[in-house]
Amino acid sequence: MKKGIIQIYTGSGKGKTTAALGLAIRAIGQGLKVCMIQFAKPCDFDTGEKKIVKKLGKDLKLVQFGDSGTWVKPTLEQDITVDMKRAGSEALEFAKECMTKGDVDILVLDEIIVAANLGIIAEDDLISIMKSKPTGVELIMTGRGATIKMMDLADLVTEMKEIKHPFKKGFNARKGIEY
Amino acid sequence: MKKGIIQIYTGSGKGKTTAALGLAIRAIGQGLKVCMIQFAKPCDFDTGEKKIVKKLGKDLKLVQFGDSGTWVKPTLEQDITVDMKRAGSEALEFAKECMTKGDVDILVLDEIIVAANLGIIAEDDLISIMKSKPTGVELIMTGRGATIKMMDLADLVTEMKEIKHPFKKGFNARKGIEY
Repeated sequence: MKKGIIQIYTGSGKGKTTAALGLAIRAIGQGLKVCMIQFAKPCDFDTGEKKIVKKLGKDLKLVQFGDSGTWVKPTLEQDITVDMKRAGSEALEFAKECMTKGDVDILVLDEIIVAANLGIIAEDDLISIMKSKPTGVELIMTGRGATIKMMDLADLVTEMKEIKHPFKKGFNARKGIEY
Repeated sequence: MKKGIIQIYTGSGKGKTTAALGLAIRAIGQGLKVCMIQFAKPCDFDTGEKKIVKKLGKDLKLVQFGDSGTWVKPTLEQDITVDMKRAGSEALEFAKECMTKGDVDILVLDEIIVAANLGIIAEDDLISIMKSKPTGVELIMTGRGATIKMMDLADLVTEMKEIKHPFKKGFNARKGIEY
């Protein structure tokens, strides 16, 4: 790509990861190469996106670090374990490699913003990835709670805002819809 | 699907169509059947999503009505032509058929909200589609400017809010990213 920008999808509403996924699908449709790294999602959990990726060939890579033993729903800072931090830093390293190797047009760092907010990775590391983005790469980052510092460095920021939600409590994610 | 809900993605920010597309991809990954009807998008324009759909088999249908002669960027009500209205009502008919036939789990009506706002279709027709949704179908509608009436009938509403945008004027959509 000639000139890629940095896009952030944040906010508490639905559609952040799915928008990044849709973007990835559209891009490979047009012949671009995409790598989507999912932070804070276990590699042994079969999501719909993982199942479909196999059909799409080598232009779309989808990777996770850590398994479901690692990712036990971290929602508060004190829940963060050494295992999560290890998986987080592996994901970061992989992201840096993707960028420096120059073999992707679009790099999606899914939930990296949440990972930074919870302390799974350091915010400074996220910021340094943003700053070192090669011109030819489009960088997409998702996750609720983007900070001012992150948004300053991004070119395009969209907030997914929850206007109406049917199942605030006791809602079980539905196969095929939420994962 | 046991019990589908109605989801709306609205607002002026990026990510509405891509979120719907990501949702569609995830769903077919989990073995569901999806039909995505694009309102106000010409069928002779090769978007990334159209190119990739061919690889994904018959579980994902992606359809448009009207060609690029029909859809000459309608942005105001007075731009709406008879051709657009014809394409819009064909799309509506197809949507109704999809629902009554019962052969889809997820029905995505992309940009149908814009179509209703511009008068390409009647809002009442959109409302009647929402009201007649079979229990087993998940209905996804996108487009800026969802009305209170639409949101009342929806179960889940997310607003894509533009926080920061790099190219307000003179921006050309980029192949592989915006289409």
